[in-house]
Amino acid sequence: MAREIMAKALPSEGKGVKVFYGEFVNEDYVFGYISRLIYGESGIQNIYILENKFWGRMLFINNNLQFTSRDEFIYHESLVHIPMQSAPEGKIKRVLICGGGDYGAAREVLKYPYVEEVIIVDIDPRIPKLIEEYFPELLPENPRDPRLTLITEDAYVLVDKYVKEGQIFDMVIVDSTDPDIGEAEKIQELSHALFGIDFHQKLLKICPSGIVVQQCGTPFTMKNILLGVYKIYQEVYSPKEIYVYRANIPSFGSDNAFIMRCPFRDPHIPKGKEIASTLYYDFSVHTGSFALPKFWKEILYP
Amino acid sequence: MAREIMAKALPSEGKGVKVFYGEFVNEDYVFGYISRLIYGESGIQNIYILENKFWGRMLFINNNLQFTSRDEFIYHESLVHIPMQSAPEGKIKRVLICGGGDYGAAREVLKYPYVEEVIIVDIDPRIPKLIEEYFPELLPENPRDPRLTLITEDAYVLVDKYVKEGQIFDMVIVDSTDPDIGEAEKIQELSHALFGIDFHQKLLKICPSGIVVQQCGTPFTMKNILLGVYKIYQEVYSPKEIYVYRANIPSFGSDNAFIMRCPFRDPHIPKGKEIASTLYYDFSVHTGSFALPKFWKEILYP
Repeated sequence: MAREIMAKALPSEGKGVKVFYGEFVNEDYVFGYISRLIYGESGIQNIYILENKFWGRMLFINNNLQFTSRDEFIYHESLVHIPMQSAPEGKIKRVLICGGGDYGAAREVLKYPYVEEVIIVDIDPRIPKLIEEYFPELLPENPRDPRLTLITEDAYVLVDKYVKEGQIFDMVIVDSTDPDIGEAEKIQELSHALFGIDFHQKLLKICPSGIVVQQCGTPFTMKNILLGVYKIYQEVYSPKEIYVYRANIPSFGSDNAFIMRCPFRDPHIPKGKEIASTLYYDFSVHTGSFALPKFWKEILYP
Repeated sequence: MAREIMAKALPSEGKGVKVFYGEFVNEDYVFGYISRLIYGESGIQNIYILENKFWGRMLFINNNLQFTSRDEFIYHESLVHIPMQSAPEGKIKRVLICGGGDYGAAREVLKYPYVEEVIIVDIDPRIPKLIEEYFPELLPENPRDPRLTLITEDAYVLVDKYVKEGQIFDMVIVDSTDPDIGEAEKIQELSHALFGIDFHQKLLKICPSGIVVQQCGTPFTMKNILLGVYKIYQEVYSPKEIYVYRANIPSFGSDNAFIMRCPFRDPHIPKGKEIASTLYYDFSVHTGSFALPKFWKEILYP
């Protein structure tokens, strides 16, 4: 299994139009894929699915790669198991996933038997449908797991409603596209509000003593949103409860940053039972993920 | 300083021919650079130097990226400080660098005041000259450091000579291009022999109780040489003394692997004084570098 993940091209079904697709990672720096374009549609977000010999299937939203079938497990395992294992065993029972309509984060959360309820709120109803058709491996082990609810709604709007209803969660995962901080983008990313201070003030209300975790892009090569989000977390949550960790998702190039508000002690020490069905995450990876390059720390903790 | 490293384009001097240069990372997967080609020459190795808005200057040997001026520090600091700090303080006095004509590894080794002698042996006499002209930042703090000797020779031949002379080193760094294991390459990489069992049997003779460290490429996306080299190390050295660690060098894409024969205990615990003038490496990075993804471990330790 592990051997197949690495350094080997995948079979192609030969469907779709052959294209050379390039994603600008930074100025004059491009990731290029000779691929078959097997799905493409405009709408509230532009969605493309490519099939590439090395990466397998690749989902792009607004020209930004979201994941590939070859290495999505690294992203989703990092996003979920590090916060889950930072909390005492059994503590996380009710989980809200903002974005994450691709089911990948939910698939990982549902591996914990003590989790009682998982709600995904994604603004784009096409994403879950496309996953079922093109990326069925992202679905939870039991795709009809009764603990899981999918809501098609703007996460900001739903969270606002939950604040008014007084709903409480043990963990909130913000699993969205990168926002458009600091750059003149043609397309306004729908995720923009999920990186703002208002949103986190609301999250604090529905998750007053739990974990909030958020993906923050690849600080070295792409938009540097990490520092901005870190400052917002410092303002909204207790500064002592904020942690940054990283994971290398090969298709993203450089290390991806994750930020976590964790009110539990020593999150770098995993607390629960190890989940057998992971491919990337284990307890040594857990602890190692919190070791940040010196130049990240110099920016975050000047 | 750290802020400048990340996510910001660099000024261009505007010299050279503007090209779109692509490096195939795997099948149908390309890193593309809109760049100025400021140096290009064939010979025993094909060498190109590009100037790119994001990466700065980039050195390619036989169409494979060796390093960029933006992130070479991560590669060289990982290659050097992890083994140096795995040994007891003051233990590493005499160091041989096989390859490494770019001076980057020597620059880092010479930061330790107790190092008495560093020999670089590189087969290609053009590399050190090009560094002086195009990448002066890779030179040691004191470019005329009397502890440093540069020898233009095939490392295999020099090591063979050192075996006959009975010379002894405390550390050997194999800092070469990737070999051409497992693929039909048009160009025979000169580094090929440095990954073979013969070479390591010789290294064991000149470094019987010291550290041998070697870069092993990016196992996820490029040639998977890690497992092959690991097996050679297991055969030549004591299996209990072999360690694998990783570092994310953004311009390489996915994590780079390093393999180390270290006869000293608990190499994941740094032993010496922390070097102030690093940008990537510190003691938390040291320990974290040994945390390997589960799918790496499943290949290495089945």
